[in-house]
Amino acid sequence: MSRPSAVAGAAQALQRCDELARLTSLSGGVERVHLSPEHAAANALTGGWMAEAGLAVRQDAAGNLVGRLEGARPGLPALVLGSHLDTVTDAGRFDGMLGVLLAIEVADRVDASALPFALEVVGFTDEEGTRFGNALFGSRAFAGRVDDGWLAIPDRHGVTVARAMTDFGLDPARVGEAARRPEDLVGYLEAHIEQGPHLLDAGRALGVVTGIAGARRFALQVTGRAGHAGGTPYARRRDALVVAAEVVVAIERIAVETGTIGTVGRIRAFPGGVNVVPGVCRFSLDLRAETDEARDAAFERIDGFARELCARRGVEWSWDEFYRADTTPCDPALVAAIEQGVQATGDAEPVRIWSRAGHDGMAVADVTGVAMLFLRCGNDGISHHPDEIVTAEDVAAALEAFEAAVLAVAARH
Amino acid sequence: MSRPSAVAGAAQALQRCDELARLTSLSGGVERVHLSPEHAAANALTGGWMAEAGLAVRQDAAGNLVGRLEGARPGLPALVLGSHLDTVTDAGRFDGMLGVLLAIEVADRVDASALPFALEVVGFTDEEGTRFGNALFGSRAFAGRVDDGWLAIPDRHGVTVARAMTDFGLDPARVGEAARRPEDLVGYLEAHIEQGPHLLDAGRALGVVTGIAGARRFALQVTGRAGHAGGTPYARRRDALVVAAEVVVAIERIAVETGTIGTVGRIRAFPGGVNVVPGVCRFSLDLRAETDEARDAAFERIDGFARELCARRGVEWSWDEFYRADTTPCDPALVAAIEQGVQATGDAEPVRIWSRAGHDGMAVADVTGVAMLFLRCGNDGISHHPDEIVTAEDVAAALEAFEAAVLAVAARH
Repeated sequence: MSRPSAVAGAAQALQRCDELARLTSLSGGVERVHLSPEHAAANALTGGWMAEAGLAVRQDAAGNLVGRLEGARPGLPALVLGSHLDTVTDAGRFDGMLGVLLAIEVADRVDASALPFALEVVGFTDEEGTRFGNALFGSRAFAGRVDDGWLAIPDRHGVTVARAMTDFGLDPARVGEAARRPEDLVGYLEAHIEQGPHLLDAGRALGVVTGIAGARRFALQVTGRAGHAGGTPYARRRDALVVAAEVVVAIERIAVETGTIGTVGRIRAFPGGVNVVPGVCRFSLDLRAETDEARDAAFERIDGFARELCARRGVEWSWDEFYRADTTPCDPALVAAIEQGVQATGDAEPVRIWSRAGHDGMAVADVTGVAMLFLRCGNDGISHHPDEIVTAEDVAAALEAFEAAVLAVAARH
Repeated sequence: MSRPSAVAGAAQALQRCDELARLTSLSGGVERVHLSPEHAAANALTGGWMAEAGLAVRQDAAGNLVGRLEGARPGLPALVLGSHLDTVTDAGRFDGMLGVLLAIEVADRVDASALPFALEVVGFTDEEGTRFGNALFGSRAFAGRVDDGWLAIPDRHGVTVARAMTDFGLDPARVGEAARRPEDLVGYLEAHIEQGPHLLDAGRALGVVTGIAGARRFALQVTGRAGHAGGTPYARRRDALVVAAEVVVAIERIAVETGTIGTVGRIRAFPGGVNVVPGVCRFSLDLRAETDEARDAAFERIDGFARELCARRGVEWSWDEFYRADTTPCDPALVAAIEQGVQATGDAEPVRIWSRAGHDGMAVADVTGVAMLFLRCGNDGISHHPDEIVTAEDVAAALEAFEAAVLAVAARH
């Protein structure tokens, strides 16, 4: 078989993105969630493509799809290439899937017998957490980090992860068998769309990811005193919403000033009557930064601002942190390999970028070094949306770079 | 029967407030809504007290309780004294009820045979609009202003006003019979707790109401663009909530600067994900002022601020006015009578005050002149809350003033 061109490989990967997009539970849109019939169908379809590329295919104990190509001799530790096959609701066609399909193309193109490691391609399940609200199930299981508490989480119909696993044909008691040992792994490389406009703005097809930003998420609350909208003069108001609104405005200002990202996505005022001064306002904060230190320092400033403001306005300030993922730095040697890969496409000084979104690599990093290759998104960088788009040229460049990165890892091994 | 002292009359009115508070649909709190079993029970109990005071009692076609005491001769036009017997959810014991009970005490104390008009005491139903969301049903029916559209409004269980009237024993087709003709009325006087702290701050037991502020209520909306919290840099964000928050803060500032009252009681961000930049923010505005001109000018400033801000931030601004009640000026002659009444308690220069809350008088003014007497609230002026409180001394003063006001109307008649 003649070695296919990168353009042809990219075209095949994109055509397969379209095929996977048809495996959806959403009429008129894409939604493919963990342990659903569409999950099974996507594993079957993608597993077929893996087999065509010469990989030995299995589904692991967590529902991840794993294809393996032995290296110079059987049983070598594996360099893992992968991404995820599940989606958010009303998703695009590329977030996750494109990385798996590019990995298959790389496996199809390389001469594995010349590699000092095995190649594995993994299509992780449940990176998004769409069904059970808790992300990275597949990659955490891969890293041996799923506990029993996770198995008891229900979806919105009350079906637990454990029950859904059984219905899917998996044994929840054996999820631990999906865990990989560090000594069996060389590292993890993932190609993924950027999900933002930085490469678009920089005029670059590809970017070298330096780290995956963690996030801290908070439930914020201002507690004042409810009162009659007509009968409560300003001097006696303890309006929780007006104070919360000042905090929302300050969060944007502080985030911009500190180069971090703060987003308030939810807000509610209580009791919520049109003619009642709000006594309580609850709102959320999602805070990200290139480093944990920068993120935590930004939160200190936000918290300090809110404390001072609330004291001055005679209301109470409180918060609860309900999610925290620290930043995952990429492995320097693997980052260098990705950089060499991008250079192989003719980009002498590849853009370095930190990932503002979470990825499977955050979980995989618990068991082996990780690095990522980002592809430019069109449409202003929009993602988690049907308008998510990439160009065939960029995908071809990504395929070249991804393959070259694998060879660079081999050369350094 | 010897004429009871004002102190004894006040004590009786307060004790009856306690008795009415037991007619509730809320365990551990007060809630008595339109066309409920508690409404029927309150009419029966209060009707008994009216009969004891010598009034001829009937329930009108809208469910209002009406007691009549003939004047110097039968069939004279009536001076109406009243307030409402329904409540909000988790209400206080005085808002409405105290005014009805003081009116009964006045009827019990005056020598009606010396009056150049009949006295009527009305316990209006549904001033609050708690059940069907549309206030002043009873007093609007009294003024002949209920249309068929109103009868079709459902409660949260889908029971329409018309259906609830039938279940209550009223004929919805005959609600027009509750309407009174202007020529049969001399005017309307209402005693009511202030529902605010102005009299408390001024150190006065009573206040003379000059007018009842109308309100305009708006559904405000900022429309930006939803985006991934991680992947959308600030330069590309069109965050609807941050802009709405600036408007919320500005509403307070503009209201304070213009001496008006602006309250944002509700706010929601959409799609509402913790990690999604809000694309739409909807919030409410309740705007009140002493005059319609001041209120409308304040809205112009708020609207102008928001339009300029939204244009600058690249988001859309829109609003819908869903409620508008213009200010009801009190009748000057009746205001003078209330003032004389307050002066009769020894307060030489009664405080004049405008009502920030709505009252039945807003509806009754369509058919006859209205005026109101306010009583000082304790507890910082709190109302629509179980902590609503008045002192027995203030109630006794109110009873004296209310009776003296009736006599002042008679003297001027």
